[in-house]
Amino acid sequence: MIIAIKRGTAPEAVRTFIALLEKQGVKVHISEGASQTVLGLVGDTTGVDEKSLQAHHLVEKVIRVQEPYKRANRLFHPEDTRIDITGSDGGVRHIGAGYLGIIAGPCSVETREQILQVAQGVKQAGAGFLRGGAFKPRTSPYSFQGLGCEGLDLLREAKRETGLPIVTELMAIHQLEVFDEVDIIQVGARNMQNFTLLKELGHCRKPILLKRGYAATITELLMAAEYIMAGGNDRIILCERGIRTFDSYTRNTLDLSAIPALKKQSHLPVVVDPSHATGLSWMVPSMAKAAVAAGADGLILEVHNDPENARCDGEQSITPAVFAVLMQVLQKYAAIEGRAMYGRV
Amino acid sequence: MIIAIKRGTAPEAVRTFIALLEKQGVKVHISEGASQTVLGLVGDTTGVDEKSLQAHHLVEKVIRVQEPYKRANRLFHPEDTRIDITGSDGGVRHIGAGYLGIIAGPCSVETREQILQVAQGVKQAGAGFLRGGAFKPRTSPYSFQGLGCEGLDLLREAKRETGLPIVTELMAIHQLEVFDEVDIIQVGARNMQNFTLLKELGHCRKPILLKRGYAATITELLMAAEYIMAGGNDRIILCERGIRTFDSYTRNTLDLSAIPALKKQSHLPVVVDPSHATGLSWMVPSMAKAAVAAGADGLILEVHNDPENARCDGEQSITPAVFAVLMQVLQKYAAIEGRAMYGRV
Amino acid sequence: MIIAIKRGTAPEAVRTFIALLEKQGVKVHISEGASQTVLGLVGDTTGVDEKSLQAHHLVEKVIRVQEPYKRANRLFHPEDTRIDITGSDGGVRHIGAGYLGIIAGPCSVETREQILQVAQGVKQAGAGFLRGGAFKPRTSPYSFQGLGCEGLDLLREAKRETGLPIVTELMAIHQLEVFDEVDIIQVGARNMQNFTLLKELGHCRKPILLKRGYAATITELLMAAEYIMAGGNDRIILCERGIRTFDSYTRNTLDLSAIPALKKQSHLPVVVDPSHATGLSWMVPSMAKAAVAAGADGLILEVHNDPENARCDGEQSITPAVFAVLMQVLQKYAAIEGRAMYGRV
Amino acid sequence: MIIAIKRGTAPEAVRTFIALLEKQGVKVHISEGASQTVLGLVGDTTGVDEKSLQAHHLVEKVIRVQEPYKRANRLFHPEDTRIDITGSDGGVRHIGAGYLGIIAGPCSVETREQILQVAQGVKQAGAGFLRGGAFKPRTSPYSFQGLGCEGLDLLREAKRETGLPIVTELMAIHQLEVFDEVDIIQVGARNMQNFTLLKELGHCRKPILLKRGYAATITELLMAAEYIMAGGNDRIILCERGIRTFDSYTRNTLDLSAIPALKKQSHLPVVVDPSHATGLSWMVPSMAKAAVAAGADGLILEVHNDPENARCDGEQSITPAVFAVLMQVLQKYAAIEGRAMYGRV
Repeated sequence: MIIAIKRGTAPEAVRTFIALLEKQGVKVHISEGASQTVLGLVGDTTGVDEKSLQAHHLVEKVIRVQEPYKRANRLFHPEDTRIDITGSDGGVRHIGAGYLGIIAGPCSVETREQILQVAQGVKQAGAGFLRGGAFKPRTSPYSFQGLGCEGLDLLREAKRETGLPIVTELMAIHQLEVFDEVDIIQVGARNMQNFTLLKELGHCRKPILLKRGYAATITELLMAAEYIMAGGNDRIILCERGIRTFDSYTRNTLDLSAIPALKKQSHLPVVVDPSHATGLSWMVPSMAKAAVAAGADGLILEVHNDPENARCDGEQSITPAVFAVLMQVLQKYAAIEGRAMYGRV
Repeated sequence: MIIAIKRGTAPEAVRTFIALLEKQGVKVHISEGASQTVLGLVGDTTGVDEKSLQAHHLVEKVIRVQEPYKRANRLFHPEDTRIDITGSDGGVRHIGAGYLGIIAGPCSVETREQILQVAQGVKQAGAGFLRGGAFKPRTSPYSFQGLGCEGLDLLREAKRETGLPIVTELMAIHQLEVFDEVDIIQVGARNMQNFTLLKELGHCRKPILLKRGYAATITELLMAAEYIMAGGNDRIILCERGIRTFDSYTRNTLDLSAIPALKKQSHLPVVVDPSHATGLSWMVPSMAKAAVAAGADGLILEVHNDPENARCDGEQSITPAVFAVLMQVLQKYAAIEGRAMYGRV
Repeated sequence: MIIAIKRGTAPEAVRTFIALLEKQGVKVHISEGASQTVLGLVGDTTGVDEKSLQAHHLVEKVIRVQEPYKRANRLFHPEDTRIDITGSDGGVRHIGAGYLGIIAGPCSVETREQILQVAQGVKQAGAGFLRGGAFKPRTSPYSFQGLGCEGLDLLREAKRETGLPIVTELMAIHQLEVFDEVDIIQVGARNMQNFTLLKELGHCRKPILLKRGYAATITELLMAAEYIMAGGNDRIILCERGIRTFDSYTRNTLDLSAIPALKKQSHLPVVVDPSHATGLSWMVPSMAKAAVAAGADGLILEVHNDPENARCDGEQSITPAVFAVLMQVLQKYAAIEGRAMYGRV
Repeated sequence: MIIAIKRGTAPEAVRTFIALLEKQGVKVHISEGASQTVLGLVGDTTGVDEKSLQAHHLVEKVIRVQEPYKRANRLFHPEDTRIDITGSDGGVRHIGAGYLGIIAGPCSVETREQILQVAQGVKQAGAGFLRGGAFKPRTSPYSFQGLGCEGLDLLREAKRETGLPIVTELMAIHQLEVFDEVDIIQVGARNMQNFTLLKELGHCRKPILLKRGYAATITELLMAAEYIMAGGNDRIILCERGIRTFDSYTRNTLDLSAIPALKKQSHLPVVVDPSHATGLSWMVPSMAKAAVAAGADGLILEVHNDPENARCDGEQSITPAVFAVLMQVLQKYAAIEGRAMYGRV
């Protein structure tokens, strides 16, 4: 961290300020130019609050050179993290470090027939994981809120039938009690800065799929991961799912540059959700291919056997048939980039 | 709700679609033009999901004429809601319906001396309420997270000493146990769409100060209020605190047009937080005055006795002296608009 | 400007880099810490390109301490600039430095009757200036593009009849030939970075009302002013007219914090256009009052005698009657802030 | 266009309003429901101003079903447009309709040696076109503004030496005089709504590469194309180059969903500029591949032989060596999608 001191500050005032900084556990290097004094903070600056420093009357500008996250930081963990999950069929799925994880399924679990049919469909097409919402965060209190525990039961049944590991969203920490058989816990975009929830998940031993808030910066997403990792849970999968911008053609704007950005800053795997990002099923295949080309470690896709009658987000769901064709093409893209997909050679 | 059907759709297909709609509990009026069939949905459409309708292959466009919120809607509750809170000094403070509520205090409670000194200062200057954070949502897990229960104890002491009702943030529902003496519960911007929390607060009998998420639309803020109100708690104070935009001169962009917008759409009182919105203490007085001129029902202001050494957000806190001067001017603005401030004639 | 050099860079490499910097006409101070070398650039750094520096392989980060604008910078011109304009009625109107300029009139000049009637109306209510568009920038090539030279003729007639100085938009530099009697030239938001046009206006002797682009930062607006000022024309009036954000309740989001921001960074007067910002006539009075409370040096308001039949932007125009009532209130606001309005004591 | 009339409006008032609408040249179908009257406008509604309609006191909401652009609209021109350009080497390059056009070269032409070296490099690697700026739009009036006519001379020389067609930016219409040998005229993002310039280019016979403004919606970009096409010039290449959002990790946020969006709405080819979008050279290859995977009809890439010493935008330029490797990979992507690149089989 570098601090530019205001011109004309008396040397004693600077010394007092330095003492204050050193009390926060960092070492301070002073460099005095003819017209400007600049301080360099060395050591662990993750606990130093930039905004508080900015409030000090001697400070002209503060510049953070090192990022405020540690465990999520590639600097301290140069190798890619790979998440391994064993399905009840005995197959081990990998996400990250050269492996592409494909997660597919309906927005919300609706009926036994629906989830089983979709699960079989996506399995046949080569998906590595089944997704499906049981607890649904909805903008309106009057909208369908998911089947809850009954939805979880149906997901478990689909897991038993297909062997696919399951991914579903947790909205409050007390739901953890019923998440025993869930393989990957999803934290939704609206909860990305629910810090109480993140802290609790730090004590959990399951992998977390952490969705980027729709107005979160790259740094904020990594700080959210850091909240979980600080508690001891290192198995985080980051997920880009579109950000909010001025344009409303798509529901959100898919920020594919987040993939190389996150992979440069962090060792964690990055998956992409083109369904929520675009909100338009006909656009999902293009964006799925683009995500793989941009270096994503996986995709999470909404697949529904009857999108027109879906109780939630039907306009962004593709059918199992479209998904199967897409998987064929995705494999070619993965091959160019030298990445492996589960169950394919 | 109005639905434009795609051109060239067969009449029988339209009839089947209408039957589907009517199963959702609404009445459908059909109007057939020469080239376009348009359906009008009448009745309670709050449970009808626009996005699902948009997925239907017969649908060209969906337009919602009526807003999806009911209890928060001025249409069904034309008069302004006024929130009344009695301090331990016996004085009744009002917010809304012609009354301006001024809430002031530090970002976080830090020491006994700090909170008592600030409380006395803002009381003397005419504040109606004391604010102070005990549980702090911080972007970094390594930043100061608030004093927690100890902070609440100090707030209670300041309440007893000054008689001021207290406002503080709740981050998780289990904290409610220790909020007995809290007069207004604040829901932070990052929790505005923590739907589980909102639902729980619907069963609570305390007024809720609901902060607008930094990327939430006017409608989403009102839907968040609706979540609480649907549970039976009607005492909601909406709070504009800046939205995230491309410009970074200020921390967020204060959206003062949200005041007339919210007051047109809803009967709930609207307060403004210029401290978090701008992040710059020198800008707070201008924006506070502008908020009152734009019709705000109150302000929430960060006041700190020693901003340079604040443990949190010092650069946006004004001193008790600046606050006292500001209060003098605000009273003149309130007078022009015919609005009353607590303890002033 | 401060440059943090990457750790582990050899001292000779740093020396070569410094020589490169000094060739750009700045002096470089070197400060070597134990782990980080920091360079301070002194002198006129306005010509040094941050982004080019960032490309250099030795550079970790670049931080600009001084703003890249000079003539528009309050640092080099501490006193407020005041723009004086004499009407054909002999009255001198001021904008800035304690004077509030009120500019009112229709979005576009439509008919002789319309512009004369509006001009009389706003004059009676106390406006200092008449606005009206002759050349209109429209999103669609099929929309009404303004009356062009005929519109200018009608504006001139209104000027003769009322004595009010006139403000109108220039879309291309060749139109300057017919702008002889125009008192203030408006540059629209979409042309704020039409650098060719800005350069040409630098050679013009008329005051320029420069509208902020709808996605322009505070710095970019001041750089646009700098383009004009670099050519020798110092009479610039900055205009905040709303920025583009994710919210669509209002046409744009009025950024009133731009007023204190611009006035801190620059000595130029700042006016506000609540009509284009909100796009909603019923919201204009609130936002006009808020702008004055926030410290604006003037307002530009759309007033139309028959908004429902306006050929352009009717939904954001207020009537002369509403304008007259608003002016009464604005005077009270101006009085609190110690600012004078033309023709009022 | 569909207009919902306010409830309780008298039938005569509706009839008067319909007469007003029909004067604008459209046919109106009336459909009266029990509680709501809805009007459908049929015919050419491109000249009907939504915002003016919204101002009318009888109108509740206006919904545009048909897009306001005609010539750019795929509805009226279902087949892909292909732009053909013959180089001075006799080779015909195509952009669109299955052909991928690769445009490469430096941000600005700096020296004879630089442009010739880069031109040879990109030609060898398989680029179809050479780009290079002579007139540069720069945020600061004190930054390097391009070599102007001298730059154009150097570009011409590079064209003669390599046979590559050249692409360069035009900032003002008078520059057209010196653009004789330019093959594709670029309109920069900041001029996308310089309507005067667009109208003039409608009379020009050269293809136009129209860059999306950094805060322009999909519809606004197509309306800008419509401005040019309305004048008779149909050879437009649309260019996505990043939009402005809240995140600042990259210079802009590349909106790859704009590719399928534009191609659905319009028949015009769409190219992508990952260099300006990201501002980070190391990110350019990922984003270039993603753009092709998403369906782009071409790329425009900044290539510089000495990025560290570039006078402009060095941090986003890749070297000819990196470009050559990228071209090898891009060909594989193009092959998957069945698209042809110039000079490759």
